[in-house]
Amino acid sequence: MKRFIERLQDVWRQHDSLVCVGLDPEPDRFPALIASGAAPIFEFNRAIIDATADLVCAYKPQFAHYAAVGAEEQLARTIEYIRQHYPAVQVVLDVKRGDIGSTAERYATEAFVRYGADAATVNPYLGTDSLEPFLRYEDRGVIVLCRTSNPGGRELQELKAPDVPLYQQVATLAAQRWNSRGNCLLVVGATHPAELAQVRALVGAMPLLVPGVGAQGGDVAQAVKNGQSADGTGLLISSSRAILYASQGADFASAARAATATLRAQINQHRTPAR
Amino acid sequence: MKRFIERLQDVWRQHDSLVCVGLDPEPDRFPALIASGAAPIFEFNRAIIDATADLVCAYKPQFAHYAAVGAEEQLARTIEYIRQHYPAVQVVLDVKRGDIGSTAERYATEAFVRYGADAATVNPYLGTDSLEPFLRYEDRGVIVLCRTSNPGGRELQELKAPDVPLYQQVATLAAQRWNSRGNCLLVVGATHPAELAQVRALVGAMPLLVPGVGAQGGDVAQAVKNGQSADGTGLLISSSRAILYASQGADFASAARAATATLRAQINQHRTPAR
Repeated sequence: MKRFIERLQDVWRQHDSLVCVGLDPEPDRFPALIASGAAPIFEFNRAIIDATADLVCAYKPQFAHYAAVGAEEQLARTIEYIRQHYPAVQVVLDVKRGDIGSTAERYATEAFVRYGADAATVNPYLGTDSLEPFLRYEDRGVIVLCRTSNPGGRELQELKAPDVPLYQQVATLAAQRWNSRGNCLLVVGATHPAELAQVRALVGAMPLLVPGVGAQGGDVAQAVKNGQSADGTGLLISSSRAILYASQGADFASAARAATATLRAQINQHRTPAR
Repeated sequence: MKRFIERLQDVWRQHDSLVCVGLDPEPDRFPALIASGAAPIFEFNRAIIDATADLVCAYKPQFAHYAAVGAEEQLARTIEYIRQHYPAVQVVLDVKRGDIGSTAERYATEAFVRYGADAATVNPYLGTDSLEPFLRYEDRGVIVLCRTSNPGGRELQELKAPDVPLYQQVATLAAQRWNSRGNCLLVVGATHPAELAQVRALVGAMPLLVPGVGAQGGDVAQAVKNGQSADGTGLLISSSRAILYASQGADFASAARAATATLRAQINQHRTPAR
């Protein structure tokens, strides 16, 4: 099997897209027809996926949206649906796990075996032995939180530790240590474009997952300019709410497609070389 | 309803115990009779709980052990069983969540509403807005990772940030900011007794969840001496594998009781005043 980063490179090229759609289902925002079905979360996701799959490089289901309502089975069905119908598109399970080694092994089993995700997000606070059970899955991607998109992210991540900010220490550990198998990536929020440039300078071609455009207000042009790798790829730019709920009417899927196409075009315009 | 810390104080006194038993089920280590049942994880947990409930202050189910095998329903039944039969004993859901605010709201719903836990563990890397949705549940406990018990914990947590180590910054944020409703606690591993004393000095009477005795090798006497609050309480000393798998034979429950009683006695011997 190809490795995660090779699969990403394939789909970046085939779909000419760095867009990652976050699958964060919020049943109160579903159109009435979907909300009344037997498996509304899966049906909503399926409609979004069918409407957007040729325009994206990845989907990113956010675990809390399933766990809060006991919808693990609909999460599994969603991932299986993508795998079956759109095998080129990568699935990033956004779980942000972080635990001691023996426990992290079980979390890696959950993400990569139970759910069969191509990649998973993890938290670096517990260090190498908490990441290693994920990294041992050589064909999967392990995406470490570095500089998150939310306001409180600065409280620890920007602390000088001791000379450079903590998030840069994380980026350096990722580049020099955690990426020994070539399957480590980082999360850097689009809400911090300067930090995105700093991280890019530290990690070479390592792909970055970039949330924070759309509802959180990050600027697409700056994210692309500061975050792309030398060949104009290297990014998964993630948007969730602005795509999923572009319309809450019966046209939600076509509205999601239009929003995805717009985001892809905005991104491609700022890539080097421009598309 | 009483608040989490008041409920802890009640059970510390009633059971004369600072022991928290980690419910980390490993089906390959179950005795044959349990392993062959229809809901083996729940049955194993129930036997452990019935054998130990009067000797403990809390149970701490570790989420990965359920999530890796799709046993969410057995996790829910376990928590419900404790609630029904041993209402004084507190339930700490060990999930180590950490995500942006809108997502953290869903994780708080999962822990406190779906599973009905008394407290949950969370990761501080994303800062205040990632913790606030948990802290808003004023009657529940929010237990923030500070200095974890595992080897890799030092990589970020001991970085000077910039003058004092990161874990002390976390302890200070917890004491000065996150504890405004009196429901914030910290995780500090027994494998780092000097750091336990440092954190105790920073946080006053705030209770600390202390993993790392038993299989991870932390010393009980030092953990108690360095970690207890002025009145000889303030700790949940957690042990999982050394209790759950004290015997893998048919006598596993009585062996777990004996191991729990021994740990309680070791702890109480070093409390001030000694019990």
